[in-house]
Amino acid sequence: MVWSGIGLPLECVAVPGVLLRPGDVLVEVEFATVCGSDVHTALGHRASAKPLVLGHEQVGRVVAVGEQSYAVNGMPLRVGQRVVWSVAVSCGTCPRCRRGLPQKCLELAKYGHERMQRGWELSGGFATHVQVRAGTAVVVVDEQVPATVLAPASCATATVVAAFGAASALVPLAGATVLVTGAGMLGVTACAMATDAGAVVVVSDPDAARRQLALAFGAVAVVDPSAPCESSTDVVSVLAGLAQAGVAEPTIALELSGDRSAVQTAVDLIGIGGVVVLVGSVSPGAPVKLDPESIVRRLVTVRGVHNYTPGDLEQAVAYLSGAWHRHPFSALVGAIFPLEKADAALATAASARHPRVGITPQPPATLG
Amino acid sequence: MVWSGIGLPLECVAVPGVLLRPGDVLVEVEFATVCGSDVHTALGHRASAKPLVLGHEQVGRVVAVGEQSYAVNGMPLRVGQRVVWSVAVSCGTCPRCRRGLPQKCLELAKYGHERMQRGWELSGGFATHVQVRAGTAVVVVDEQVPATVLAPASCATATVVAAFGAASALVPLAGATVLVTGAGMLGVTACAMATDAGAVVVVSDPDAARRQLALAFGAVAVVDPSAPCESSTDVVSVLAGLAQAGVAEPTIALELSGDRSAVQTAVDLIGIGGVVVLVGSVSPGAPVKLDPESIVRRLVTVRGVHNYTPGDLEQAVAYLSGAWHRHPFSALVGAIFPLEKADAALATAASARHPRVGITPQPPATLG
Repeated sequence: MVWSGIGLPLECVAVPGVLLRPGDVLVEVEFATVCGSDVHTALGHRASAKPLVLGHEQVGRVVAVGEQSYAVNGMPLRVGQRVVWSVAVSCGTCPRCRRGLPQKCLELAKYGHERMQRGWELSGGFATHVQVRAGTAVVVVDEQVPATVLAPASCATATVVAAFGAASALVPLAGATVLVTGAGMLGVTACAMATDAGAVVVVSDPDAARRQLALAFGAVAVVDPSAPCESSTDVVSVLAGLAQAGVAEPTIALELSGDRSAVQTAVDLIGIGGVVVLVGSVSPGAPVKLDPESIVRRLVTVRGVHNYTPGDLEQAVAYLSGAWHRHPFSALVGAIFPLEKADAALATAASARHPRVGITPQPPATLG
Repeated sequence: MVWSGIGLPLECVAVPGVLLRPGDVLVEVEFATVCGSDVHTALGHRASAKPLVLGHEQVGRVVAVGEQSYAVNGMPLRVGQRVVWSVAVSCGTCPRCRRGLPQKCLELAKYGHERMQRGWELSGGFATHVQVRAGTAVVVVDEQVPATVLAPASCATATVVAAFGAASALVPLAGATVLVTGAGMLGVTACAMATDAGAVVVVSDPDAARRQLALAFGAVAVVDPSAPCESSTDVVSVLAGLAQAGVAEPTIALELSGDRSAVQTAVDLIGIGGVVVLVGSVSPGAPVKLDPESIVRRLVTVRGVHNYTPGDLEQAVAYLSGAWHRHPFSALVGAIFPLEKADAALATAASARHPRVGITPQPPATLG
């Protein structure tokens, strides 16, 4: 399904022949989810080349392999394997790849983000098939894990893994108090992951239903950023109450909403020696005010995380493979549309009623 | 010499009796240097309790030891040893000390910063003696290293070690291009340390004499932040020229000046995946504008560093013990005053003509 511009319906395009180069695999899509950035692209909130095939969160099955095609763990890929794959295609040899930043490869291509081009038409997940190119981290996944749980691995889950990796490089996650701003797909994933790692999680979101969801994923407390100061759900009051109950000040904050006031809150409220990881700010907006003296005297770290590394994706899949038994991950996909109704899926996703909306080219009954 | 308020001359006060508690040592001061923060306190640029004894950069000799007094390496301290010691007295048991942040100890006291109190009158380096209290990291130093080289270890050098530690926890220093803003005592120390570690250092300072000094300490290029854009000494032009010569974009920036525009420059110019360490911003000032989207998409980290840990001080002493042969550290003390002329020393330090001004209670000829 091809996106050709703001307000235009997606078009069904046939790609009759696919030439697999060494390292490529052809994957039949089982199930995809709509990420917020698919919605941003479709609504024109950011500049995008067009026409393009949207979608970069999906799970599928290998139906053809090129020569020398390997999973990220080094094992050869075989027809019939169920897989997820990275959003990024990286060269592996440029200075950025060698510095451990394959997500900023100088030759970077991204699934669901590239103008359709001859030889790589199947470049997005809202399709029956995807040509997964050499340089993409491919992870083989368990047959038992529901597709609804696995599809977000290659964006939402791996990004949360990367964010906690950025934090825990400096502050141990176990035993920490973690402030999470934004209780969408990434936020509730962060709640579950941090709780499972032995952290205490406090979540801020202006939406009451999302706050409820955060509690279902392990948050010990939720706050409403739109609440008046010193009301019972104000973040300062809630943190003060927790402190009286013996909960330490937050030393890790994950800002997942992109809301500028949430960025400011995270930077202002993080404890001495703490780390604020900015993730959600992927659209242009007003700058935030940073008081350098406060950053220095409080020994605060602010880190930006964008996308993730192959190792993060492996960790995301490993996490979900166990965690869906402990947390209601499979309930996060609130609606599923057939591929030919991908327009309706995007519109429903834009309404933000569900953490994720699904798209499948297969009869729903076949979903694993 | 006791400071009693802005504009008042320092007063000579005798302290007739000193009771050493377990862990304490009494040190006879050999030589002290005036740190920028001594000048800030004396000029009233920050709120300080008074009366107090200034000075926290010094080297001295142990003249008396309390029971169970140990150096930071665990060896018992003995009379006659030449030592430097941390600016911080930490309890070692509070939650912050246990989290590895002894410089933010809940019971923190700092040499040269505390109101004179009964039982700890000798709390600053501008004195004949200092009572070095239990909970202070004490490092035994080599007799061969000049006092002028060693005195700054306990503030300038250890803080630079801490700053590079904060950076190299995330980005390897060897092979990196390092941008240093501010070529005072910390800046030239950073030049030497990074160059010795295999980094390429570019230094920004509005003062031509300081830029020359940075070159003498290993900087490969210097830039003038007051130069007009696109002039030959503008930072963007210099970095572009270096890039053409094959020098990588800066991935570590140390902001040592406290100047708000230098903070902004460091955050704006740091390369993808790079780390900006803020050190110089220890006075109130205007906030800087942080574009969260740029921080996220460039995977930038901004860290605040204030003071340092005992391990940083050990590393600072180890570094200086070798580095003074390779770099002109001993030339950084531009003037030396006897203790009774500490007022003149502060006034000369305030003129900022020299990276450091020295104070000694001993006849200058005896300086090691």
